[in-house]
Amino acid sequence: MIAPLLAGGVALLLSLFGTGFMARRMREHRLSQPILVKDELNVAVPDHLHKSGTPTMGGLAVLFAAFVGYLVSHLRQGVVFSRQTALMWLVVAVMAAIGFWDDSLKVRSGHNRGVLWRHKGYITLGAALAGAVALVALTDIDTRLSLTRAETPGWQLGAVAWVLWAGAMVFATTNAVNVTDGLDGLAAGSALLGFVAFTAIAYLGFRNPTIYPSLVDPYDLAVFAAAFAGACVGFLWWNGAPADIFMGDVGALGLGSALALLALATNTQLLLPLLCGLNVIEIGSVALQMIVFRASGRTRRLFRLSPIHHHFEIGGWPETKVIIRFWLISGMSVAGALAIYVADFTQQAATP
Amino acid sequence: MIAPLLAGGVALLLSLFGTGFMARRMREHRLSQPILVKDELNVAVPDHLHKSGTPTMGGLAVLFAAFVGYLVSHLRQGVVFSRQTALMWLVVAVMAAIGFWDDSLKVRSGHNRGVLWRHKGYITLGAALAGAVALVALTDIDTRLSLTRAETPGWQLGAVAWVLWAGAMVFATTNAVNVTDGLDGLAAGSALLGFVAFTAIAYLGFRNPTIYPSLVDPYDLAVFAAAFAGACVGFLWWNGAPADIFMGDVGALGLGSALALLALATNTQLLLPLLCGLNVIEIGSVALQMIVFRASGRTRRLFRLSPIHHHFEIGGWPETKVIIRFWLISGMSVAGALAIYVADFTQQAATP
Repeated sequence: MIAPLLAGGVALLLSLFGTGFMARRMREHRLSQPILVKDELNVAVPDHLHKSGTPTMGGLAVLFAAFVGYLVSHLRQGVVFSRQTALMWLVVAVMAAIGFWDDSLKVRSGHNRGVLWRHKGYITLGAALAGAVALVALTDIDTRLSLTRAETPGWQLGAVAWVLWAGAMVFATTNAVNVTDGLDGLAAGSALLGFVAFTAIAYLGFRNPTIYPSLVDPYDLAVFAAAFAGACVGFLWWNGAPADIFMGDVGALGLGSALALLALATNTQLLLPLLCGLNVIEIGSVALQMIVFRASGRTRRLFRLSPIHHHFEIGGWPETKVIIRFWLISGMSVAGALAIYVADFTQQAATP
Repeated sequence: MIAPLLAGGVALLLSLFGTGFMARRMREHRLSQPILVKDELNVAVPDHLHKSGTPTMGGLAVLFAAFVGYLVSHLRQGVVFSRQTALMWLVVAVMAAIGFWDDSLKVRSGHNRGVLWRHKGYITLGAALAGAVALVALTDIDTRLSLTRAETPGWQLGAVAWVLWAGAMVFATTNAVNVTDGLDGLAAGSALLGFVAFTAIAYLGFRNPTIYPSLVDPYDLAVFAAAFAGACVGFLWWNGAPADIFMGDVGALGLGSALALLALATNTQLLLPLLCGLNVIEIGSVALQMIVFRASGRTRRLFRLSPIHHHFEIGGWPETKVIIRFWLISGMSVAGALAIYVADFTQQAATP
């Protein structure tokens, strides 16, 4: 309990001061991302031009804070470093680097879309698959597929199928968080709730090794998740509406991959779509919009604008109302996911 | 796990539709509360006049939804009704009735302060003490005082001292939540986090009767807390900035007393100031402001305006920023309180 608290606390403070510092310095140097005016289907986006000039890449401070919080907690508390968590940090770093590259191109070129735009999908998919291969090859990660860690259903996938599955999951989650990151605090707030849930899940696994025997270093995972949760709180202090800074792709890809990796490591992959319910809705809205648009011969749109948060904005909901309502949806799905997890745990604990 | 989820779910849906319905009907009938223009020290409040015309008394829908959610869960799931929880509902109803009385006077008289203003303190204190007497006389409630239910330190107070202590606690909490209720969603959001925490605390107590032997009907308490949490979510859908409806005193006094009663029933009274950390800060700012003002011969003010959320608004923070930052503070204190509780539980569980 002390190590996760310490990691979360250190990350929170670092993120709080780091993000504030970044926001001020970047505004002085006019380093900001151009605001999206039209979406990919050429629909005008609700007027967000008052946000132009808001610095981006705040995700750098978040990830740095989470990493330092994680390290400090380990050094002070003597928690064993696990190879699994080291690899997870590596994947997060690679994803963040891809996002950072794209962010820099956007800021420098003055376009909303980085030059990488068309290729970013392939690059992140490649990184996700490479990470999955490394996890299977170098760690004892469980290659079963289960809803919760209670071993039921728990289909054994085998290395190859697991790599494809895990790669797709990391890829999908990073992109889903990226799509969610369209209103002030939306992505950071929902990610915060996800990390809190994973802290609880990993801690429960650590405390009950007889029920979750195949979890690799769950205490280390709890520290990992808590560090990210703390960093998100510090970031939201500045990122909350009206935002002083955005997380940028560096933040969205980093946080998204961290969430997916936690689901893989705690073997709650089938719970992830519920835990990240808001992100699923967001990326689902983009996919549905595109499908309907193409199927109708480019004449019909399902939503006024996708991702779906813009649909409601155009429909007349004030931006803060959309944000708070989407946070509530996120909170409900996280609560539902945790309830399933705890119910399953309770059932397992009752079985002799 | 099923009964609390059912209670929370039913309360959420009822509160969602009930609050929306109330907001529309009351706006049609122009039933709204005059907006505060000057505070008790005659300082102008930040311009909230754009909020005039916003209906109030949304707390009625919240409490009704929580109560029906609680009932439905009990009837469907066959959870035993406990006398303790029945008394808790009675105290909440009395507090809400006092608030409703005051709200009606405000709406009808067109003043921001109901006629009760000067007397409301005595009336709520009396109700709180009466409730405490009833709890001691009619239930097996534990009259020890402890940080968490782990029996340490656990000072035995005896009936009379406990009544005074419990009455003061209920009184202070209702007023603290009332003071917090000054920006859109602030009181409901922090109360939501508190109820979620109490659901977890009561559920943990229910699952581990050997560790928490003197808890009376903890499962019933978990259902009670979950019903309130669900009702808060449904209410926040409309109460989030910009608010379509306010909770009014009926809501603030009802929710505040429910939180304090949960702390009494789960014997986490000393944890309550941390669990309701935001409310403590808010009412503390009012008290400090008054003390400094009086001590300085009515010349000095500690804050630009109290409660403290107005201090930051006048200092230039946008309203939504104050709200989100205060929610984060509330989240941090709730997380800290839960961590203490779980750490203590873990220690007790490890002791043979």
